[in-house]
Amino acid sequence: MPVLEISIIPVGTDQASFSSYLTQAQDIFERRGLSYQVTPMSTMVEGKFDDLMSVASEVHQLPFQAGVNRVITNMTIDERRDKEMNMSSMVEAVKNPK
Amino acid sequence: MPVLEISIIPVGTDQASFSSYLTQAQDIFERRGLSYQVTPMSTMVEGKFDDLMSVASEVHQLPFQAGVNRVITNMTIDERRDKEMNMSSMVEAVKNPK
Amino acid sequence: MPVLEISIIPVGTDQASFSSYLTQAQDIFERRGLSYQVTPMSTMVEGKFDDLMSVASEVHQLPFQAGVNRVITNMTIDERRDKEMNMSSMVEAVKNPK
Amino acid sequence: MPVLEISIIPVGTDQASFSSYLTQAQDIFERRGLSYQVTPMSTMVEGKFDDLMSVASEVHQLPFQAGVNRVITNMTIDERRDKEMNMSSMVEAVKNPK
Repeated sequence: MPVLEISIIPVGTDQASFSSYLTQAQDIFERRGLSYQVTPMSTMVEGKFDDLMSVASEVHQLPFQAGVNRVITNMTIDERRDKEMNMSSMVEAVKNPK
Repeated sequence: MPVLEISIIPVGTDQASFSSYLTQAQDIFERRGLSYQVTPMSTMVEGKFDDLMSVASEVHQLPFQAGVNRVITNMTIDERRDKEMNMSSMVEAVKNPK
Repeated sequence: MPVLEISIIPVGTDQASFSSYLTQAQDIFERRGLSYQVTPMSTMVEGKFDDLMSVASEVHQLPFQAGVNRVITNMTIDERRDKEMNMSSMVEAVKNPK
Repeated sequence: MPVLEISIIPVGTDQASFSSYLTQAQDIFERRGLSYQVTPMSTMVEGKFDDLMSVASEVHQLPFQAGVNRVITNMTIDERRDKEMNMSSMVEAVKNPK
């Protein structure tokens, strides 16, 4: 299953913190039953490609719903079809190489 | 209208060039009537949010259709709701500030 | 020569525009004699690897000098050693494939 | 202290896996005494700005030393000067908001 990394940056708010949107994003992932991992600079989510694009759209809307005027959303999708891939195996391959 | 920046990187092919997928991506943007701009490291496209996510999905599939096993796609969406924004005005604001 | 793509996002300012930092960044590139290209969502610069890292550091500081408290800087460096690469040839390969 | 997110993608190798470079990158971070965290899609490192740019340069070279012809390196630096920031507090703010 592909993995999505997503980060959203609200621009033009007078606060330098924006973790509250990421807290809300977790609710979206949990409601949809998607495995996710919060990292210091982004959130990573595992799922079918279409589901990942769909939650990315939903997460991008969060700051607008709170009245923010500009949002910059970065997304990376890593998809591999020759072998199984998931978030745990990706970390394991780096930490404990065969 | 929001602007999407997209780049796709096929991994595990024995060629260090992959511009052919970007050439195909142009056909997708033109067929859909979306304004786009090819830059040295990405393609930028202007359109409604849902249309941008939809073409991003289509572009991500291109290397798989050619037999590539792994694709890493980077996307950034910049959306602003307090004033008009388009690709030309974004470049103009940098080059000829008021 | 490698190519750098850089974008800087000031966070926690009450303005949704931040093109003025990119205008200043152009002065840095010109002073150093580096070829660059302003795109709607970033600036791309061509140069030796160490020079690119050095200008990236300088550009990252610009919003702090103006009093901004938080800056998120995205950089991508694409470097190829098997053949000549420059910003023009990268666009040309997409638009007019052989 | 600022946080760096870095990912390196070797292009034009015939293998779809490239975790070995990230394993080597860990050695670089440890030798320099920098805190780091391996995530499914990147590595995040905490340190002084100049140290982060310096290790990023070193990590970018790893695939070339192994004979790869093209490397695309993505880096994001998040720096905040109005309050303490580190990798743990960034995750904590999302998971357990006040």
